[in-house]
Amino acid sequence: MEKTMRAEIITIGDELLIGQVVDTNSAWMAQLLNEVGIELHQITSVHDNPEHILSALDEAFSRVDIVLTTGGLGPTKDDITKHVLCEYFGTTLVEDARVRAHVCELYKERPDVLNRLTATQWLVPNSATILPNRVGSAPIMLFHKTTGIANLQPEGRSMFLIAMPGVPHEMKIAMTEQVLPYLSKFTIHNSKFPIIHRTLLLYGIPESTLALRIEEWENALPATMHLAYLPKDGTIRLRLSSYGEASAEEMNMQIDALKPLIADYLIATEDLPLEAILGHLLKQRGQTIATAESCTGGRLAAALNAQPGSSAFYLGSVVAYANEVKEQVLGVKHDTLLQYGAVSEQTVLEMANGVRHHMHADYAIATSGIAGPDGGTPDKPVGTVWIAWATPEATTAKCYHFGTAREREQITQRAVTAAIVELIKSLNSNL
Amino acid sequence: MEKTMRAEIITIGDELLIGQVVDTNSAWMAQLLNEVGIELHQITSVHDNPEHILSALDEAFSRVDIVLTTGGLGPTKDDITKHVLCEYFGTTLVEDARVRAHVCELYKERPDVLNRLTATQWLVPNSATILPNRVGSAPIMLFHKTTGIANLQPEGRSMFLIAMPGVPHEMKIAMTEQVLPYLSKFTIHNSKFPIIHRTLLLYGIPESTLALRIEEWENALPATMHLAYLPKDGTIRLRLSSYGEASAEEMNMQIDALKPLIADYLIATEDLPLEAILGHLLKQRGQTIATAESCTGGRLAAALNAQPGSSAFYLGSVVAYANEVKEQVLGVKHDTLLQYGAVSEQTVLEMANGVRHHMHADYAIATSGIAGPDGGTPDKPVGTVWIAWATPEATTAKCYHFGTAREREQITQRAVTAAIVELIKSLNSNL
Repeated sequence: MEKTMRAEIITIGDELLIGQVVDTNSAWMAQLLNEVGIELHQITSVHDNPEHILSALDEAFSRVDIVLTTGGLGPTKDDITKHVLCEYFGTTLVEDARVRAHVCELYKERPDVLNRLTATQWLVPNSATILPNRVGSAPIMLFHKTTGIANLQPEGRSMFLIAMPGVPHEMKIAMTEQVLPYLSKFTIHNSKFPIIHRTLLLYGIPESTLALRIEEWENALPATMHLAYLPKDGTIRLRLSSYGEASAEEMNMQIDALKPLIADYLIATEDLPLEAILGHLLKQRGQTIATAESCTGGRLAAALNAQPGSSAFYLGSVVAYANEVKEQVLGVKHDTLLQYGAVSEQTVLEMANGVRHHMHADYAIATSGIAGPDGGTPDKPVGTVWIAWATPEATTAKCYHFGTAREREQITQRAVTAAIVELIKSLNSNL
Repeated sequence: MEKTMRAEIITIGDELLIGQVVDTNSAWMAQLLNEVGIELHQITSVHDNPEHILSALDEAFSRVDIVLTTGGLGPTKDDITKHVLCEYFGTTLVEDARVRAHVCELYKERPDVLNRLTATQWLVPNSATILPNRVGSAPIMLFHKTTGIANLQPEGRSMFLIAMPGVPHEMKIAMTEQVLPYLSKFTIHNSKFPIIHRTLLLYGIPESTLALRIEEWENALPATMHLAYLPKDGTIRLRLSSYGEASAEEMNMQIDALKPLIADYLIATEDLPLEAILGHLLKQRGQTIATAESCTGGRLAAALNAQPGSSAFYLGSVVAYANEVKEQVLGVKHDTLLQYGAVSEQTVLEMANGVRHHMHADYAIATSGIAGPDGGTPDKPVGTVWIAWATPEATTAKCYHFGTAREREQITQRAVTAAIVELIKSLNSNL
């Protein structure tokens, strides 16, 4: 028997395969499955096509015991998952009184939605266990078989198929409130240890340089642990994983041996978003922050207030896209903009000081740069970004060159990352 | 022979399967492939594991002729794609002088990166065609076989495998500059018509109500066309697709027949982001916009300036998270906040007027709401959002209830969508 239970995800929908929708569900589900000791083996995205769905199901069940599907459960004609699952499991649709009552309650104030198409939502596969979808009309369907399906599987095997809606917030509530509690009744964790991922977050070192620096340590890792390098926007997440083969203590020992080798680039020892790390540091100190943004255009603000509870440390921002706004709202001097331009050390320093003063914040960050694709000059090519940090002690600025080959979105994301990382480093060094 | 060439994508990396990274590459590639008449049949995400990659390749080539892989091409030990491809295609690694020269040039100012691990990047599979990666060290590798591989394929078939880096901006440049021009030399479009997707964007109608309203039209669609409903944040994208079986004129006729049925909910007849539609309308009129944001926290600003050229119409924003910022920067009256609270019609009206005045904008949007998970009251539960629109003619406000069951991110995204849609509708009606 395998060391850990393994699952696969099949996401169903033409929209995924023509690029109209990015599959964000699978990554979210993967994290949750890992937490309860289920390893995700594969993610497969298929068309709203019966044969394609059926063959994907056969292939997945030839590899794993748990298959989760999302999508294709809506009330419209293009949604066919329910019908295909009836065919796969040899069952038919029957009316479910509880689902009917739930859907009628859900739309009691919207009689136009309680129409004949919505009524198909309370038809469910006869052999499936039906779990409620608290926030939507499509019920969650669980098929549990302990014997072979379609002669493909050996007798006695316990197989689960769970079909969920593709709408992310419906899927998330279904996973958290219904699917994981259900699965945990059946999935017996067979290994001595849980699945463990430990992540260190680094900034400012190239991937290959890092790999050489820790080569000796990496080569001496036991076979029960696996190391991965995940570069993103100038950071590298260094992840040590074990799938039920190493204890938390063994993992900690390795992490402790690694830390001194990379101390000068280490930002955090948890896999948290940068903004959560900064928010935590500010909350600990009871201090506040504001931002003045040109090229990042509100993305730094959005990052800082993305976490619940951010009003404890985040006051506000001025997105000063136009120069007039830099002058009139932030108090940047007209002469500064004339003499040095919007993308300059002088301007970001004045922006940071201006917003810190206006919003009575302890810290302020300002950004001004050329995100492209247009607007670059020989002196200041696309990718040039000035960032300033105003603290109770001083205001400093730094010029970054994020590269002419990068896209607008990539350049602004690098700027957001650099802006937050430098403040985290400065707060950490002041501890 | 098939009507259109079909491709599959295999994304390689443990990070995808433990949920550390969302696969955004595939959707982007899918769009591009569709544009050149290649249908994407399946997306498969697999582990950095040789057996897993090999079996995914076998399965994909049993279905399609073009397989694109991303990921696993870095210089570190966890990157194994190149070695697995050598095994799959029965070849070995050799040094490539052009790649060596390119990588040395790329890092000429960073001698620490030109190390022994980076040097493995100029070892390439002997039988592959190597295309340059202009912005990174991992070359793009193309395998083209016209006969069977591993006895799986019939003779005479033309098969392509293209391996690209997983870093999104490297993949995008590779696809645009190298892969599509290469593929277009070999892929002969076999159908009379191209792949066509036509999308109508609607707002404010439930999916099932829409489906009933257009049922007769939908049932009368020819078998060569397929309709899909894609709900997101209160909008529905209604997509009519044909994979080389219908002409553009036939598609247009159907769309023209559909439009009058849904005119009251129709926002746009192109599949553009909402912010691009609004930006286009404002640019046409030579008018400008500013925003004042509380609960949306900069996301409305970020949406408005996401498109290149947005400085033509977008001036700036004040993210007023703290009440003091609403007063001091936006000029909301202290009494208004005291008497009505931050989440109120009076406050958003003053916020919108304040920012419009301060930034000398033609239009302004203001948002204030309770994004949760905390902060809800019986009167103003989580999901309550007030939005105001200030125009040269008037300032109006509307209260939305986005639902207590939704997540913080979902609520703010719904607010951004509603804020932009209502302004688009108002600008369209003024045409």
